[in-house]
Amino acid sequence: MNSVQFTAQTSSNGVVERDFTVGGVTGALWSPTPGTGRAPLVLMGHGGGNHRKSPAMLGRAQRLVAGGGFHVATIDAPGHGGRPRTEHDEREIAVMQQAMAVGEPVGPIVQRHNAHLAERAVPEWQATLDALQELPEIGTDGPVGYFGLNMGTAIGVPLTAIEPRITAAVFGLFWPESLARAARQITVPIEFALQWDDEHIPCESGLTLFDAFASKDKTLHANAGRHKELPRFEADSAVHFFVRHLGGAVTSPA
Amino acid sequence: MNSVQFTAQTSSNGVVERDFTVGGVTGALWSPTPGTGRAPLVLMGHGGGNHRKSPAMLGRAQRLVAGGGFHVATIDAPGHGGRPRTEHDEREIAVMQQAMAVGEPVGPIVQRHNAHLAERAVPEWQATLDALQELPEIGTDGPVGYFGLNMGTAIGVPLTAIEPRITAAVFGLFWPESLARAARQITVPIEFALQWDDEHIPCESGLTLFDAFASKDKTLHANAGRHKELPRFEADSAVHFFVRHLGGAVTSPA
Repeated sequence: MNSVQFTAQTSSNGVVERDFTVGGVTGALWSPTPGTGRAPLVLMGHGGGNHRKSPAMLGRAQRLVAGGGFHVATIDAPGHGGRPRTEHDEREIAVMQQAMAVGEPVGPIVQRHNAHLAERAVPEWQATLDALQELPEIGTDGPVGYFGLNMGTAIGVPLTAIEPRITAAVFGLFWPESLARAARQITVPIEFALQWDDEHIPCESGLTLFDAFASKDKTLHANAGRHKELPRFEADSAVHFFVRHLGGAVTSPA
Repeated sequence: MNSVQFTAQTSSNGVVERDFTVGGVTGALWSPTPGTGRAPLVLMGHGGGNHRKSPAMLGRAQRLVAGGGFHVATIDAPGHGGRPRTEHDEREIAVMQQAMAVGEPVGPIVQRHNAHLAERAVPEWQATLDALQELPEIGTDGPVGYFGLNMGTAIGVPLTAIEPRITAAVFGLFWPESLARAARQITVPIEFALQWDDEHIPCESGLTLFDAFASKDKTLHANAGRHKELPRFEADSAVHFFVRHLGGAVTSPA
């Protein structure tokens, strides 16, 4: 089994940020200031074309550490954040950019390529979780959450479907065709975000994916606005969700 | 113009509760401990068969005062909370109970009777708001919110549609047929709750009513579960919504 290799560390506003690798996969871990004891772990999956320390990841990590006292981990998806792209990745990205350039629907291509990336990313997440749980401040007996939208949902849904250590998850902004089957295997509490006026994912498609989750405890948050207009306050809502389900403590107003 | 007549006062946990009347209408006002200056006002409408100090009203008022520092006011709807029922009210309630007893849909009767009650309640709310704004701790220049589900939505939607002093509202759990027209006149931020497995209000009906609001800033919260299983955490979410839109301060973890 691969262990966590820390490669850099910074600290600000009561949050410690550590870059790490597990096997060849690059990741980042945000934690409360040391000495606060064990805390639950939230895994975060970034969106397509982004990386482990994109602004969205940094903002959500800050909120989760400050608002819930959690450890928060991200890893770069295959072909993202400096990780090498395969020839297959390059071809698919070219097809996607071509579709966008001529105004054709990107949904079918995004779904196909994200499903392919998920096949590679799910075992990487499981190996990363194995390694993170070896850290004394995380441990093997604490609860684990998953938080990812867009491609973070395309990877997180199949991951959560087969990974019993994940006991609560926040998903959103994806199509049902490639994910409904895995969603029907998920029974842990979920919160699911969609945009009511999404120009890429028809509202009905998002509702269909939400409906597919087998979870008895599930909440849909649908906001007016287009695909990229998800309100910032949904990140605060996710913190409250994980505090309810992972047992963190709200340590500051959020 | 009628003024507020206070009839009783109690205090606990930093919340002052005052019963009042405006004209012949009985109400309750919850406030932070005196001396904290002016604060925004949230009007709350109770559900059918309930009253101004039902457990749901008390719980939400406590959260709104503690979490946002707001003033919170309720009034008894016509025929509720000891206010006299008309012969018409008695007939409609008998029809409703008969339908429930034999397992027939109550939706059409509830909508018809609640629309009738709203015609009487909307001017009562306006007179109450006039009177409450004469109180020095509320004033005429502060923001006003409205929070009501079920019959509280049946009354609150037509009220908000014609009352420019209400600048943010939380609604939910109602049918579109009798409310969509008024909803299309509402442009202030709203949060709307529905139950995904509601046995009285089909999920699609709730989505149709949410869609009708003209608000650019609107959020749907759909939770798994039946009509009466709305999760308690939606009350906390409403507090956060009003803090965002009325400018209160979160004074304790919520």
